[in-house]
Amino acid sequence: MGALGCLEDLALQIGMIQGTAHPRLNNPHIIVFAGDHGIAATGLVNPYPQAVTAQMVLNFLDGGAAINVFCRQHDIALKVVDAGVNFDFGQAQLIHEKIAHGTGNYLEENAMSREQAVLAIEAGKKIVSLLHKEGCNCIGLGEMGIGNTSAAALIMSYVTGIPVEECCGRGTGVSDTQLETKIATLVKVHGKHAPAIAAAPDAVTILQHVGGFEIAMITGAYLEAAALNMVILVDGFITTAALLLAVIEDKKVKDHCVYSHTSGEKGHRRMLSYLNARPLLDLGMRLGEGTGAAMAYPVLQSALAFLREMASFESAGVSKSE
Amino acid sequence: MGALGCLEDLALQIGMIQGTAHPRLNNPHIIVFAGDHGIAATGLVNPYPQAVTAQMVLNFLDGGAAINVFCRQHDIALKVVDAGVNFDFGQAQLIHEKIAHGTGNYLEENAMSREQAVLAIEAGKKIVSLLHKEGCNCIGLGEMGIGNTSAAALIMSYVTGIPVEECCGRGTGVSDTQLETKIATLVKVHGKHAPAIAAAPDAVTILQHVGGFEIAMITGAYLEAAALNMVILVDGFITTAALLLAVIEDKKVKDHCVYSHTSGEKGHRRMLSYLNARPLLDLGMRLGEGTGAAMAYPVLQSALAFLREMASFESAGVSKSE
Repeated sequence: MGALGCLEDLALQIGMIQGTAHPRLNNPHIIVFAGDHGIAATGLVNPYPQAVTAQMVLNFLDGGAAINVFCRQHDIALKVVDAGVNFDFGQAQLIHEKIAHGTGNYLEENAMSREQAVLAIEAGKKIVSLLHKEGCNCIGLGEMGIGNTSAAALIMSYVTGIPVEECCGRGTGVSDTQLETKIATLVKVHGKHAPAIAAAPDAVTILQHVGGFEIAMITGAYLEAAALNMVILVDGFITTAALLLAVIEDKKVKDHCVYSHTSGEKGHRRMLSYLNARPLLDLGMRLGEGTGAAMAYPVLQSALAFLREMASFESAGVSKSE
Repeated sequence: MGALGCLEDLALQIGMIQGTAHPRLNNPHIIVFAGDHGIAATGLVNPYPQAVTAQMVLNFLDGGAAINVFCRQHDIALKVVDAGVNFDFGQAQLIHEKIAHGTGNYLEENAMSREQAVLAIEAGKKIVSLLHKEGCNCIGLGEMGIGNTSAAALIMSYVTGIPVEECCGRGTGVSDTQLETKIATLVKVHGKHAPAIAAAPDAVTILQHVGGFEIAMITGAYLEAAALNMVILVDGFITTAALLLAVIEDKKVKDHCVYSHTSGEKGHRRMLSYLNARPLLDLGMRLGEGTGAAMAYPVLQSALAFLREMASFESAGVSKSE
């Protein structure tokens, strides 16, 4: 007892989720939700142009991104969703759930309407529900969206009460000067939307003001996956921000979450500690896309494999302690 | 750059070891070395009887141990070596390198003769050299031996200068009272052998006084694997103690080591920090057998897979930062 550390806790957690002493992971999927952010067009928070979101979606479809590599390695099926990219895709293998061509710039207006936030949450639920019908009982949620560490930092600040400047990190890699501008911008945005959010601090309101379409869909995906008793692999900073929103709506979502890793993005560690999460890996990764979730998947497999395949002291004829 | 964290460092390290920008892991093996310890018969340091070493060797050969499960999961070949178990095995699939039926009780005498220490180191080298001839370029080293956390704690103390009471942990799970006895015993042993070791603090002398046959073979295995430019997966407390000895003999061994995990066994964290090691996983495991090495293996595969398979910004048509 205890010699396999976290693997023992994981085996127990997954057994509890599935309601069995013989848990199994079936038809695992990672879903990458992509969306654009109005703020990104200003260049105030991101060193890469907004066009990179669409370019990376095409890269996912071509199989050339890190998440493709790790999903192939671990036999995880990958789905890519256009939640609201500022580009019109023709590709049939993409899941088309575009709410709009990017959110509004929350420096000046709300990111989206209340109806769009609700629509996006519902789309996330629907996608997970369809995968569940195909026998999938384990999902990892990933994202792509230039500028979305800013939305995630704002969400983190509104939900946890931690000042937004402490939630804000370097994202895809801003310089020191760019980081100062990013923080100054987010402090301004935070103040602008704070009164409305304080008046109604629910997931839809927060998403409406500073969300992203991909973040809203991920929020819905968590809620549906938990309702369907699936195992959920939580990835990095942005997807954990979406989890904060899902947990406002339903605390029990946390019981279904396996925290795959601690991201190198600054605020993630504190976000995880707010959730009392104990992540499996800490490899300094900060790429998003669900890459942490994919890397952690074999650890889950190990947890169930030892439960299924290891001999007991009795069956192996090993003496007990004295 | 940096977004894949440790994976980038790993890809570089393995590329440097292999002298290529296209590194590959071929025919990976984990070798579990088993040996018995004279001290174990006294019951002063271990809650499990000495017979468990042999019983676990049989369990390895039957495929029922944790290391079997994880090796199957990751397609790692497993070899088991009788380095000096107090039992006569007939099984042909076991590698027979028995030096003696367990070491001497270092509370009263030396653990082994100088000749036995040298023989064991040479046997470890030979085993690795044979695997290398079969195309193996990546090995993890594991161990089994009731009482061997005590030998490892003594070795750690002699090499690092850290008092033995701070090196001594609970091993397979001694109670508070048993831990007090274990520490008192090891303090006595440490004092007895300290003058001789201080006079000649080399690997052979330390092994002669407080070593184990499995630990000596692992020391040899590290030396040979490094000499043959193999990638070495370092496992937990006992195998890292063997590494401390190998590093006394040849500092360059460290360049070939990937530290798979931080063990739950008390002294391991400090041992790793003495080596300036940055382990990949921290899952609270403390089972030995090479289980940490097996769990870390897919992380190495990920590091080489991203290097091999990921598109570049150029090839995927992704815009650069501004």
